[in-house]
Amino acid sequence: MEYAKEAVKRGTTCIGIVFKDGILLATVRPATQLMIPTSVEKIFQIDDHVGGVASGYLADARVLANQARVRAQVHKITYEEPIDIWSLARVIGDRMQLSTLYAGLRPFGVSFLVGGVDKTGLHLIETDPSGMLYEWQAYAIGRGGVIANKIFKQKWKKDMSENDAVKLAYDIITKTEKERKESVLDIAIIRKDKFKKLTEEEIKRALK
Amino acid sequence: MEYAKEAVKRGTTCIGIVFKDGILLATVRPATQLMIPTSVEKIFQIDDHVGGVASGYLADARVLANQARVRAQVHKITYEEPIDIWSLARVIGDRMQLSTLYAGLRPFGVSFLVGGVDKTGLHLIETDPSGMLYEWQAYAIGRGGVIANKIFKQKWKKDMSENDAVKLAYDIITKTEKERKESVLDIAIIRKDKFKKLTEEEIKRALK
Amino acid sequence: MEYAKEAVKRGTTCIGIVFKDGILLATVRPATQLMIPTSVEKIFQIDDHVGGVASGYLADARVLANQARVRAQVHKITYEEPIDIWSLARVIGDRMQLSTLYAGLRPFGVSFLVGGVDKTGLHLIETDPSGMLYEWQAYAIGRGGVIANKIFKQKWKKDMSENDAVKLAYDIITKTEKERKESVLDIAIIRKDKFKKLTEEEIKRALK
Amino acid sequence: MEYAKEAVKRGTTCIGIVFKDGILLATVRPATQLMIPTSVEKIFQIDDHVGGVASGYLADARVLANQARVRAQVHKITYEEPIDIWSLARVIGDRMQLSTLYAGLRPFGVSFLVGGVDKTGLHLIETDPSGMLYEWQAYAIGRGGVIANKIFKQKWKKDMSENDAVKLAYDIITKTEKERKESVLDIAIIRKDKFKKLTEEEIKRALK
Amino acid sequence: MEYAKEAVKRGTTCIGIVFKDGILLATVRPATQLMIPTSVEKIFQIDDHVGGVASGYLADARVLANQARVRAQVHKITYEEPIDIWSLARVIGDRMQLSTLYAGLRPFGVSFLVGGVDKTGLHLIETDPSGMLYEWQAYAIGRGGVIANKIFKQKWKKDMSENDAVKLAYDIITKTEKERKESVLDIAIIRKDKFKKLTEEEIKRALK
Amino acid sequence: MEYAKEAVKRGTTCIGIVFKDGILLATVRPATQLMIPTSVEKIFQIDDHVGGVASGYLADARVLANQARVRAQVHKITYEEPIDIWSLARVIGDRMQLSTLYAGLRPFGVSFLVGGVDKTGLHLIETDPSGMLYEWQAYAIGRGGVIANKIFKQKWKKDMSENDAVKLAYDIITKTEKERKESVLDIAIIRKDKFKKLTEEEIKRALK
Amino acid sequence: MEYAKEAVKRGTTCIGIVFKDGILLATVRPATQLMIPTSVEKIFQIDDHVGGVASGYLADARVLANQARVRAQVHKITYEEPIDIWSLARVIGDRMQLSTLYAGLRPFGVSFLVGGVDKTGLHLIETDPSGMLYEWQAYAIGRGGVIANKIFKQKWKKDMSENDAVKLAYDIITKTEKERKESVLDIAIIRKDKFKKLTEEEIKRALK
Repeated sequence: MEYAKEAVKRGTTCIGIVFKDGILLATVRPATQLMIPTSVEKIFQIDDHVGGVASGYLADARVLANQARVRAQVHKITYEEPIDIWSLARVIGDRMQLSTLYAGLRPFGVSFLVGGVDKTGLHLIETDPSGMLYEWQAYAIGRGGVIANKIFKQKWKKDMSENDAVKLAYDIITKTEKERKESVLDIAIIRKDKFKKLTEEEIKRALK
Repeated sequence: MEYAKEAVKRGTTCIGIVFKDGILLATVRPATQLMIPTSVEKIFQIDDHVGGVASGYLADARVLANQARVRAQVHKITYEEPIDIWSLARVIGDRMQLSTLYAGLRPFGVSFLVGGVDKTGLHLIETDPSGMLYEWQAYAIGRGGVIANKIFKQKWKKDMSENDAVKLAYDIITKTEKERKESVLDIAIIRKDKFKKLTEEEIKRALK
Repeated sequence: MEYAKEAVKRGTTCIGIVFKDGILLATVRPATQLMIPTSVEKIFQIDDHVGGVASGYLADARVLANQARVRAQVHKITYEEPIDIWSLARVIGDRMQLSTLYAGLRPFGVSFLVGGVDKTGLHLIETDPSGMLYEWQAYAIGRGGVIANKIFKQKWKKDMSENDAVKLAYDIITKTEKERKESVLDIAIIRKDKFKKLTEEEIKRALK
Repeated sequence: MEYAKEAVKRGTTCIGIVFKDGILLATVRPATQLMIPTSVEKIFQIDDHVGGVASGYLADARVLANQARVRAQVHKITYEEPIDIWSLARVIGDRMQLSTLYAGLRPFGVSFLVGGVDKTGLHLIETDPSGMLYEWQAYAIGRGGVIANKIFKQKWKKDMSENDAVKLAYDIITKTEKERKESVLDIAIIRKDKFKKLTEEEIKRALK
Repeated sequence: MEYAKEAVKRGTTCIGIVFKDGILLATVRPATQLMIPTSVEKIFQIDDHVGGVASGYLADARVLANQARVRAQVHKITYEEPIDIWSLARVIGDRMQLSTLYAGLRPFGVSFLVGGVDKTGLHLIETDPSGMLYEWQAYAIGRGGVIANKIFKQKWKKDMSENDAVKLAYDIITKTEKERKESVLDIAIIRKDKFKKLTEEEIKRALK
Repeated sequence: MEYAKEAVKRGTTCIGIVFKDGILLATVRPATQLMIPTSVEKIFQIDDHVGGVASGYLADARVLANQARVRAQVHKITYEEPIDIWSLARVIGDRMQLSTLYAGLRPFGVSFLVGGVDKTGLHLIETDPSGMLYEWQAYAIGRGGVIANKIFKQKWKKDMSENDAVKLAYDIITKTEKERKESVLDIAIIRKDKFKKLTEEEIKRALK
Repeated sequence: MEYAKEAVKRGTTCIGIVFKDGILLATVRPATQLMIPTSVEKIFQIDDHVGGVASGYLADARVLANQARVRAQVHKITYEEPIDIWSLARVIGDRMQLSTLYAGLRPFGVSFLVGGVDKTGLHLIETDPSGMLYEWQAYAIGRGGVIANKIFKQKWKKDMSENDAVKLAYDIITKTEKERKESVLDIAIIRKDKFKKLTEEEIKRALK
């Protein structure tokens, strides 16, 4: 377990921000020359109204995100409405807790920030390797988490605009990941029934 | 097993009180800035007439609480009446004992205080990681347990009013968790067929 | 196995006595203030004509007692007569022996005194963690066992009255558990088709 | 395996003798005051024509004897004749050998002397913890085995009378178990279709 | 895991290049005298539009490639269209991640470069032993990876011709594997619906 | 595995000899006073035309011989002709090899000499604990194997008479097992469709 | 794995040669006096058109050869044509790789040279304990492998006659196994639909 939590602490900084009418998820991805940037995006769309960003072992993250996608689809077909964000976070948390119970399995070495919008409003939920769930207004995981969360406490405000959220995300990522030059900011905005990754253009425009 | 019991001893103080016509469950939750307080509530509603509060590994608690909810529903459908509190506590205790029997599983690192009202009256039952069950008039688990239980022995009285129970809970939590400033009192009141979490307002009113 | 037997040796003193027309089972339970006394009774009713008292890990005892109850019910339904006491004791003994055979399971850390009345008469049977069965006229297990069994050899008489059996039980428990002040005597009397726990009143009356 | 064989070497002395028209099995059982003597008999009736006496872990012996009983009944129903003694001994031997093959199981810590009468005559067969089978005219296992077998070589005679067999058994048990005062001689006589335990009276009469 | 990644680092240099209208995969194979060269080709055709080259334990590679082939066929039959390259890479990555979760399995000691053309265009995807996936314009794995990737950063250009890609591959392999004389260059070109291994002749012609 | 082979090396000397029109199998068995000699015979009849002699853990031998008997019967019923000797030896060898593959099983600690007559003639086949099979004209296993096989190389002749084979067996067993006084020679002769153990009388007559 | 490969390196020298219109497989077998030579042949016929020779643990080889035979038969029945040599080699290689994946299994300690003729021509394929497959014109495994392969590089020629192949095999085996006097050359020739082991006579004739 300690080993799994360590993997998260050394992972890339990932942040989530609740703003006026949506959720922002952000992280950086390695921008090694010749690498197709989208292939290492750590922001996963799970359904139209929900996504996640992960820090730690990214192969674990991919597998968990796929299981979450399948459960979201099954829910939609069964109940004819989108899965609510807490149920979805529990799908991930329960799978992680299960792996800590059996001696023959290793815990998943990854934490998620799951963000989405459902009938009950905006939700940003953290899952850690033990399977615990925490809901936040704004939160950061990974190697820059401590610094990032200090900044959040000073700067986050209720009902921020999307642009202010993007600026805040930009500031935090710049501070916490500044020594990693070959990396690029990734931002996803989740609104009601709409998951969208910002283009570099859109980010620049927002920062003006 | 020792490891699991240690996890409970270091967990948040959780208390349960039997009063005149109901059960009070209380604990604190971290009130870290920006965290959505309800996301880390450690008080679980299991059915209309029964709930639980848990100390230790909270991911384990969430999973056990879910299993208890499912069993409560299955009981209601099968027998057309709500599950009695002792049967429900045994569901949790049996699952915990099972995990101590197999070398390939780890014991659950959590204790519950299950409180509820059934045809036989008011019940407050403790389950520990070995699967043992104890019924109490008032009891506390977690890091403040020793102090809390001393206070209970002096202050608890039969047929207390709900307001007196809330005051007693407030006093005990204040004493045992005083060094943790960023935390908020959580109280649930379970009456016949009615589980209810008190708002901050309701707690304040009761303390007057 | 040694570990399991050690758990029994350190358990509460439990005694069983065969008297004129029934079986007496007795032990003490912790009488911690505020605890509901019945919740930690270590005397289990298994069927109308048979019960047990257990020393050691009580969560193990609860689970074994439940399995014994189920088997007693199944027997009654299948054969339209109550299970005999030796068959019931074997149910418990076989389950315990099974746990000693497999490397992946731990032995049950508990001993039972099973007492009951069937067509063949009165029976008081001990099961130990290895699954062995011994039948006694009077016997004690747990931390006071050595002393208690010495007293039995001097004081037990054939065809004692119930009152004499209660007095003998009281004397032995008082001697072996005297340093544990916060504990209360628990006595069950099993007669033909009738399992009954004595009230404090009834015990006092018998001791006059 | 060594551990299992050690358990047998330290077990109670058990002897078997082939006499003129039957088999004698004998051992001692603890005669602790207040213990019901029959509850710790180590001589098991398996069917009308066959029985066994066991040295070592007696919980293992009970379980194996029950499996042998079931197989004897199944044989009788299937083939409409009693199981022959060698087949029955193989049932026990095969089960014991199986437990030595798998890393996840422990070997049975018990040896049996199986005695019986079938169409092929009188048989006294030893099974050891490895599952080996040996047939004897007279043999002893357990802590007094070495001494007992020396005596057998001098004293056993073909076509002994039952009384002489009882006397020989009495002499051997007296010599090998003399330091254990609180023990009582147990003797079973198996003749064609008749398994019978001798009463104390019958033993005394035979010794005259 | 470290062990598995080490196996890849010591494996043969394998490269993949995205060029104007296709993907080039290349590696060397041992050209031991008398060995049938095709038998140790490390370039696997998976379907008409997709192939892979592997570095590390080649028995693992063969098995994974076969599983990928089966999944590609199943996809074609089920959906009546060829599998897309990312789905196929995930088949391999998921199988690899699975092997890292269970204590009873060892991780696969191999990395793949999967190259192919689907409706979304040209894709070159790396899978590593943890199951991670990265998409590249040009990339190298194995013992010559570090040097090769430096060269790629200087020399790779968008929309290269196939001939230029072959020349670049030849240069890199020559540099990184020059000390291994007995080895032969293997190149596969994947275009829309066409997987083709170049003959020695075709390579020579391209290098002119 | 080494442990299993050691068990065979320390086992009783067992020999097999191909003579003019049959196979001789021989070994000694302990002739402890009072033991029924046939109960420890190490020569197993498997079918009318085939038998085996085993050195090592004899409980393992008994179980393997029984499996071979079952397979021989199944073969006869299925194909309406007796099983050939090589197929039968493979049944034993395959079972032994299987036990060496799995970490959870121990290898069988026994070697067999299987001798028999089928349509292809006379066969004497050795199986060792690894499951290997060797066919011999004459061969010995067990503690006297080295010496016995030297004698075989000097003394064995093609088309020996049965009497000469018995004499040779007698000489070898006498030399290799001379220090074990309490043992008796066991010889079986297998001819076409006829398995026969020699009586002491028959052995003596042959030795004249 | 290292252990398994070591077993192969210490095994008997086995060679395979592709000649004009067939495949030659050769090895030596122990010619211990009295041993039936054919019983330890290491050359296995798998089907009419394909065979194998194995070095290492021969019990493993026998089991793998049998599985290959079954698969060859199943293929013939299913597809109404003989299995091709590469598919057959993959059957063996896949089984070997599987055993390296699971912690509960040991790797097979054997290498095969599989030789055969199918619609695509002549094939000589090596499988090693990791499950890798290599195709050769001529190759040797086992303790004489290094020397043998040097000789092959000088002496092997395309389209050799069968006689020249036999002479080359004879020379190599003589050189590599000369110190083992008690051994005999075994040669199999596989032509289209015809597997044939050479008699001693035929070998001598070819060597003239």
